Amino acid sequence: MFKECFDNVREKSPLVHNITNYVTVNDVANIILAAGASPIMSDEPEDVEDITSICGGLNINIGTLHKSSIEGMLRAGKKSNELGHVVLLDPVGAGASKLRTETAEKIVNEIRLDVIRGNISEIKTIANGIGTTHGVDADVNDKVTDENLDEAVSFVKNLADRMGCIIAITGAIDLVADKDKCYVIRNGRKEMSSITGTGCQLSGLMTAFLIANPNAKLEAAAAAVCAMGVAGEIGWSYMKEHEGNSTYRNRIIDAIFNMDGDMLERYAKYEIK
Amino acid sequence: MFKECFDNVREKSPLVHNITNYVTVNDVANIILAAGASPIMSDEPEDVEDITSICGGLNINIGTLHKSSIEGMLRAGKKSNELGHVVLLDPVGAGASKLRTETAEKIVNEIRLDVIRGNISEIKTIANGIGTTHGVDADVNDKVTDENLDEAVSFVKNLADRMGCIIAITGAIDLVADKDKCYVIRNGRKEMSSITGTGCQLSGLMTAFLIANPNAKLEAAAAAVCAMGVAGEIGWSYMKEHEGNSTYRNRIIDAIFNMDGDMLERYAKYEIK
Amino acid sequence: MFKECFDNVREKSPLVHNITNYVTVNDVANIILAAGASPIMSDEPEDVEDITSICGGLNINIGTLHKSSIEGMLRAGKKSNELGHVVLLDPVGAGASKLRTETAEKIVNEIRLDVIRGNISEIKTIANGIGTTHGVDADVNDKVTDENLDEAVSFVKNLADRMGCIIAITGAIDLVADKDKCYVIRNGRKEMSSITGTGCQLSGLMTAFLIANPNAKLEAAAAAVCAMGVAGEIGWSYMKEHEGNSTYRNRIIDAIFNMDGDMLERYAKYEIK
Repeated sequence: MFKECFDNVREKSPLVHNITNYVTVNDVANIILAAGASPIMSDEPEDVEDITSICGGLNINIGTLHKSSIEGMLRAGKKSNELGHVVLLDPVGAGASKLRTETAEKIVNEIRLDVIRGNISEIKTIANGIGTTHGVDADVNDKVTDENLDEAVSFVKNLADRMGCIIAITGAIDLVADKDKCYVIRNGRKEMSSITGTGCQLSGLMTAFLIANPNAKLEAAAAAVCAMGVAGEIGWSYMKEHEGNSTYRNRIIDAIFNMDGDMLERYAKYEIK
Repeated sequence: MFKECFDNVREKSPLVHNITNYVTVNDVANIILAAGASPIMSDEPEDVEDITSICGGLNINIGTLHKSSIEGMLRAGKKSNELGHVVLLDPVGAGASKLRTETAEKIVNEIRLDVIRGNISEIKTIANGIGTTHGVDADVNDKVTDENLDEAVSFVKNLADRMGCIIAITGAIDLVADKDKCYVIRNGRKEMSSITGTGCQLSGLMTAFLIANPNAKLEAAAAAVCAMGVAGEIGWSYMKEHEGNSTYRNRIIDAIFNMDGDMLERYAKYEIK
Repeated sequence: MFKECFDNVREKSPLVHNITNYVTVNDVANIILAAGASPIMSDEPEDVEDITSICGGLNINIGTLHKSSIEGMLRAGKKSNELGHVVLLDPVGAGASKLRTETAEKIVNEIRLDVIRGNISEIKTIANGIGTTHGVDADVNDKVTDENLDEAVSFVKNLADRMGCIIAITGAIDLVADKDKCYVIRNGRKEMSSITGTGCQLSGLMTAFLIANPNAKLEAAAAAVCAMGVAGEIGWSYMKEHEGNSTYRNRIIDAIFNMDGDMLERYAKYEIK
């Protein structure tokens, strides 16, 4: 199944509209290209409706907000909804500031989303209307572990039900769920968190997977999470002793570039709960 | 001739003002530095006239437009014209949205340009006032091939004549022409299109070449295209099996860093039509 | 001493608020992560006060100004002052345009700064209200050399006294001084200037060092300069013949990733004047 999800990305080469932060935007573009899809970036309110219309889906990332880009997100989201396109929200830093929390909530309320993907802290902020966020990284107290796994799975399924969309919580253990089914994924490496934007990259990649697999969105979202994690493992295997996070960033994108459906299938480590 | 064009860049170290998109801006800066020139970025309308005044030329790239940056492009362009500076336009995504098409047209109408550089789809949009653009990549039906080469050469020469500037169409076969003379260039590799921003990088690099060679602009523009293509070939020759587009990006810029006029002369593959 | 400065960064993992330019922002984020700290970027006036409140300090870099980001800088700076946070100013291109010079002056006048870090040209602009700046690189006539060292040390100490903050002038020889004491640092390599943003990266890194060492700010600032220079030396030692500035950028950040206090102590080259 994951094999087909990835193969569909390479075959269909979907065009992904990204409204994303200026910190990690280049890596988001390159990882989408690495997977065989095409990125386009546009956040100006007067440009976004035209751009989203020629794309297959929309990736909204609130990592660096501007007043005009917030308007761009809403206009693009509404247009995407009109056209029946996939929309993903990456609520970066929700909980860390009023503007981020309120923008995430506004998007959740006004746009029909297919997936919300974030760390546990951001997702809890959306779930609770409250939350603690240490910058843009997950609050340590909230981590999904083997000890709290069943509880976390229930939480994410319930939230998916309440929100009416797929919820993807990424961290040491990743959870990707709709109301009935939760993928518990154990790919990836802890060193990935020392690179800026692996989460943003995953959101871009996941949007490409969703567009290319319209009839299997949950599987597509889970496949994208596995692909990113497998790339983290493969990329790490080529690291030399003197190399660090900057080179690791390149090696992860390179690993997606060289990955196909068969490799993803072989290395994906997950269970369904 | 190409040798001198490149050597002049290293000797004169021109300062290039870039108003460019936030996706690929870092790579644009690094490739300009790699060639021995200096980049400066500024798009705020109140800043651009001062900045462009201390530079030798202006690179305008419309890859991610904002209302204020559009105003910045126009003010910088007019100031550059006043000062007799080189101005290059990279109409990224012209044809993909009304705002991009109209902005490209506005710049073409209000600013005296030395070069317009884009893919065939973007250039046709400018030529026709109409056009089809699949995102920011060239529409496949429009590709320059050996079969339609003579027709394409006529088209680009005519357009150069009509526009009163050099036209550079890049793709598998690159065409760089004024009304009388067209360089047909066959350097580069298809894998370059799996990196975001190789076109943007070329526009920055080309602006440096134009500034450093004020009396041989057509040759300078063609030399820059060859340099980028040769860098793509050299960069690829160092790629290891597990490496992909992210590392390839670095290797291409690295190849410019290590290139000199002699190497460019030796590896340039072109004919004049 | 430098050893403890770096070890404190890794132990305390400070959160650094960066309002920085869109050219080099990704590298700034990655070098902060490489040192064991955490970056967060936000320049929207309505977002910055909340964000800076959860951080330990603020890095203001004026490399690409927008009207709204200038307001963001001032609001974040004032909030940081209120909270007693560290604030660093990197006056990129001060002297190159009226807007940059005036913005740097406004920040200097309205915000209590802990450190101003720039090249000699930018620092002289701030010192004199006048100055010559060739783009964002230092004016060659102003370079700190062994010949003018004593004079330069006096200048920087006097300026630190007048400004009431630490002044860091970076170049072939780096000077980091308060009114009484000047670190003269000779780490680094000339090739670092062929990478865009090594100065911006240093400012981000230095802010992390300052936050982690509140009782030894001068030493922390000097330690950050040495760390960057040592990383430049280590990074260069791994360069292969065909590699250039783009790979060198990665290798420098990688070297910070692999550096600890002991290595910094061992390789730091400085005298105190």
